[in-house]
Amino acid sequence: MLGGYMGKILEVDLTSRKTTITEIDPELAKLFIGGKGYGAKILWDRVPAKTPPLSPDNLLILMTGPLTGTLAPSSGRFSVITKSPETGIFTDGHVGGYFGQKLKTAGFDGIIINGASEEPVYLHIKDESCEILDASNLWCKTVFEVDEILKKKYPKSSCGVIGPAGEKLVKFACISFDIGRQAGRCGPGAVMGSKNLKAIVVEPGDKRPSYAHPDRFKKLVKDLNRSLHTHPNRIKRHVLGTLVCIWEGIDGGTLPIKNYSGIAWPQIISLVPEKLWEENIWAGTTTCYACPVACTKLSVLKSGEYKGKKLEAPEYEPVAVFGPNCLIDSYEWVTYAHILCNDLGIDAISAGNAAGFAMECYEKGLIKPEIDLKFGNGKALIEFIKLIAYREGIGDLFANGVRIAADEIGKNSKRYAIHVKGLELPGVDPRASYGMALAFATADRGGCHQRVWVARAELYGKLKRFSTEGRAEFVKYNQDERAACFSTDLCDFMPFSEEDFANLLTYCTGLEFTPEEYVHAGERIWNLTRMLAVREGISRKDDTLAPRCMEEPIPAGPAKGQYISQETLDTMLNEYYNLREWDRNGIPTEKKLKELKLECKDI
Amino acid sequence: MLGGYMGKILEVDLTSRKTTITEIDPELAKLFIGGKGYGAKILWDRVPAKTPPLSPDNLLILMTGPLTGTLAPSSGRFSVITKSPETGIFTDGHVGGYFGQKLKTAGFDGIIINGASEEPVYLHIKDESCEILDASNLWCKTVFEVDEILKKKYPKSSCGVIGPAGEKLVKFACISFDIGRQAGRCGPGAVMGSKNLKAIVVEPGDKRPSYAHPDRFKKLVKDLNRSLHTHPNRIKRHVLGTLVCIWEGIDGGTLPIKNYSGIAWPQIISLVPEKLWEENIWAGTTTCYACPVACTKLSVLKSGEYKGKKLEAPEYEPVAVFGPNCLIDSYEWVTYAHILCNDLGIDAISAGNAAGFAMECYEKGLIKPEIDLKFGNGKALIEFIKLIAYREGIGDLFANGVRIAADEIGKNSKRYAIHVKGLELPGVDPRASYGMALAFATADRGGCHQRVWVARAELYGKLKRFSTEGRAEFVKYNQDERAACFSTDLCDFMPFSEEDFANLLTYCTGLEFTPEEYVHAGERIWNLTRMLAVREGISRKDDTLAPRCMEEPIPAGPAKGQYISQETLDTMLNEYYNLREWDRNGIPTEKKLKELKLECKDI
Repeated sequence: MLGGYMGKILEVDLTSRKTTITEIDPELAKLFIGGKGYGAKILWDRVPAKTPPLSPDNLLILMTGPLTGTLAPSSGRFSVITKSPETGIFTDGHVGGYFGQKLKTAGFDGIIINGASEEPVYLHIKDESCEILDASNLWCKTVFEVDEILKKKYPKSSCGVIGPAGEKLVKFACISFDIGRQAGRCGPGAVMGSKNLKAIVVEPGDKRPSYAHPDRFKKLVKDLNRSLHTHPNRIKRHVLGTLVCIWEGIDGGTLPIKNYSGIAWPQIISLVPEKLWEENIWAGTTTCYACPVACTKLSVLKSGEYKGKKLEAPEYEPVAVFGPNCLIDSYEWVTYAHILCNDLGIDAISAGNAAGFAMECYEKGLIKPEIDLKFGNGKALIEFIKLIAYREGIGDLFANGVRIAADEIGKNSKRYAIHVKGLELPGVDPRASYGMALAFATADRGGCHQRVWVARAELYGKLKRFSTEGRAEFVKYNQDERAACFSTDLCDFMPFSEEDFANLLTYCTGLEFTPEEYVHAGERIWNLTRMLAVREGISRKDDTLAPRCMEEPIPAGPAKGQYISQETLDTMLNEYYNLREWDRNGIPTEKKLKELKLECKDI
Repeated sequence: MLGGYMGKILEVDLTSRKTTITEIDPELAKLFIGGKGYGAKILWDRVPAKTPPLSPDNLLILMTGPLTGTLAPSSGRFSVITKSPETGIFTDGHVGGYFGQKLKTAGFDGIIINGASEEPVYLHIKDESCEILDASNLWCKTVFEVDEILKKKYPKSSCGVIGPAGEKLVKFACISFDIGRQAGRCGPGAVMGSKNLKAIVVEPGDKRPSYAHPDRFKKLVKDLNRSLHTHPNRIKRHVLGTLVCIWEGIDGGTLPIKNYSGIAWPQIISLVPEKLWEENIWAGTTTCYACPVACTKLSVLKSGEYKGKKLEAPEYEPVAVFGPNCLIDSYEWVTYAHILCNDLGIDAISAGNAAGFAMECYEKGLIKPEIDLKFGNGKALIEFIKLIAYREGIGDLFANGVRIAADEIGKNSKRYAIHVKGLELPGVDPRASYGMALAFATADRGGCHQRVWVARAELYGKLKRFSTEGRAEFVKYNQDERAACFSTDLCDFMPFSEEDFANLLTYCTGLEFTPEEYVHAGERIWNLTRMLAVREGISRKDDTLAPRCMEEPIPAGPAKGQYISQETLDTMLNEYYNLREWDRNGIPTEKKLKELKLECKDI
């Protein structure tokens, strides 16, 4: 038996209401590690190309990594893998909090959910078993309401819950775990909704992962924790949380402003993290399982339905997309919007991006919504989010994401729909960062910030700014390395080296990983997720950005005058495909797949 | 008549009690601009080599620049130039607040104070005239006490005041202007004390500088103000003040920790700027004259003699030298120490550096003070500052600065006395920044941070870290450019280009400056201040660092393992002298001086 893994995956067929338990395959564990990689492999094997994402045949996969629930720092995380209803391709979300760790103590490395129930149900997981229970009394309720009900019944549990948005199949509906930790992007909440599955409850048990080399593992963990203590990244993230990126965005000119148009907006000064304290919104700092960083901010709002409640928020991404992107210069509104998204079960990033897009369409006279959606209107933003979650009025149009909304609106609105492969861009203007432009264009789940954060390397001079130099190499290497990290499912904020990760894996599982093998596993996983896209028809033509990003120079700020021309993008893409040993069309070559031991015969 | 300048310098001879008015020399204005440059030229011409700094023959010179008191942003500043009792060479301090602007409205570009009074006096300056008045009732009082008395008498005035430290000739006594703005470093307060001059009061008048090209000047100012509005540096400094450098220090590993030994110190998390808000010490933000940045923080302490008063503090440098350098992990203590220094009239940077040195000597058993001077003891730090200010007990030893204290203590304590040319280093460990090491070693007033701040260029990748590459060029160029900036006396935090400065000067004064001429004037000034040191015996042997910096590798953090070896320093110095066209011994060549139109014949 391998260390780290519990060895068991729970399989739930909601159509037949049967649950079974399958075993972790040690060979796959070596090749795909766990989390993202293992989940992608299951998706490849069991969800054929062209399967409609909201059909019962799609799988919703929750996979921990071998390091989840171990003594390693910040080891509470797990992955949510499915075929996205928003992008039509593979997606993986990585979730902090406590759910992942508890799942392991209940005896499972993962959960594979298949089929669809006719009536609303929820899963109750405890001690290596699972009940499928009636959720009709939970349906139509918000995340916070459902979590409260379930917590009363199962006080020590962690719950993953969908809100009204998931029920209404909003294409960017999320799953909220532990209330404030989201499998956010690409609509896994809609997949869960399509299966009539309202919640997954896991109660902690007495199972614990074993270690292949317990002494070496514990010593390494001790050393890593000690080094974290004074590490600048830990200190910054502990104090400022992800909001540290607000400062980096101001510095680099990378914040999205007014739907990624990039005008001068001095009001950004109202959204620097220190205003949280100054305005008495900050209410403490909290942490995921076993995390010495504790980056999560707690806030208490002064008005609205969450008034007076201490809740997890805000994070950088929602602040960026609701704040400068919608020209809303108040932490009260922005935090409200963020919390509302968590409660209604919407991905806050896509919601903020869609709001900026809707505001631009409104101000340009392309849509006639029932609310006064002008830039800067916090009240309208809140209403807009609610309309989306319940698919009412103008919300129904934007509930399918900006790509489809732009198709329906027509009139050149496509120009202002800022997405890649259907996934709304997060809080970085790619024109201000050549590296992020390439990272967005090639990210395996569409316009995603979590694969490589090149903006920091550019800001701190590791890469020359406003240049294609070194971008392909940096993006390729880090996509691979991060894919491996997301498969161990340690938090990606841990500033550990490849050697640290390889040693953690080796000492924990007993599978031998060198640093090179660790990154090589990541490359295998990245090629697999690419193939999951390729078999849906994705190729070079899709590795691109919105017209605004490629044609309109930034009008102000530290990145003034910059844009990503087709030529610039092509230069980077050619080099990137070359390094990846993919063909000129962005398709992995047979040679490459063979070298990576990927058998993708059914293409 | 030139624009910008009032044309008049007030000369006060305290020995004869005579005041005269001399005129600004337009030729010198073109060559030396004003502020630092003009003051250095006066010092060169009128204070011969070997003049004892605390003798009546030394001059205390207060000089504005041509941009002081104009419409240009942050134009309240002026320079205090004298021969330092701490280093024995030229020093210039640059002071914000309102004093400089008011001096111009009273009709003067500067004040030259000569001789010494037999009894305590103060100057009262108003409407192109000056009275020398009795200050016997002010003597022995602290800065805040004196300022309060003078403000009652002259409500609209700005006052420059010395505290007990200046009276007691503490070698790093400062002059406090507007209470919170200091001519801090190198002991100008002791020079003032040696002249029995307790205060300088200036009442605002109705004089205003004229402009040679008013329309062009006003348009440029408007453009600069607009660009400042969204400039990242303005936003950062407005929100975090100089405390932004705490974050940069954590990031770069450049903070001085435990008397520049550099141990791992996780408690630094208590001194990140956000704790000011979290701990309710922050009480607002204030500004110098006409400044769109407004970087000054206001604090209210919870205990001690300043309890409940809203005062200007803390700034980065005092936090660095009292905080990590003394292992004191509380904003309450550190801010207390900072305010106390302002009130007693001590330079906070030298005080904090000396405290760290004293603590190390104490813990190593080299001194036996009457207080428990162990690292981390905030109460002892406060007592230590008071003992220095009044030259009592152990304070008398350290009141002469760490260089002389180390000579007296002996026993290898020199190793831990962290100064250059007698001036205590500020809050940067030079081992963590090759550029700062060179900047400190060559700064014209000794170990000073204000000449070039290379640490940021290294942190943001403009210079490769831990390398000598490009350091000489960077330091040389910026020393020159900043010397010119300090002579215009606009605030050195304004992120303006050489072209902006040259145009501001040209449009204001009518003297034509190209960007190259502006920097060239700075080079002239830098060579003049070097010659002011050279004629006191300074040469290459003095362009060096403390043994700790050159022999002990940093034991922890982002710059772990780094130190500045003699070889590293020599490499940079050789290149630096070469670029400066100085000889191998660090002496400006005759050819260079001639080219710069510097007549320094009496060497």
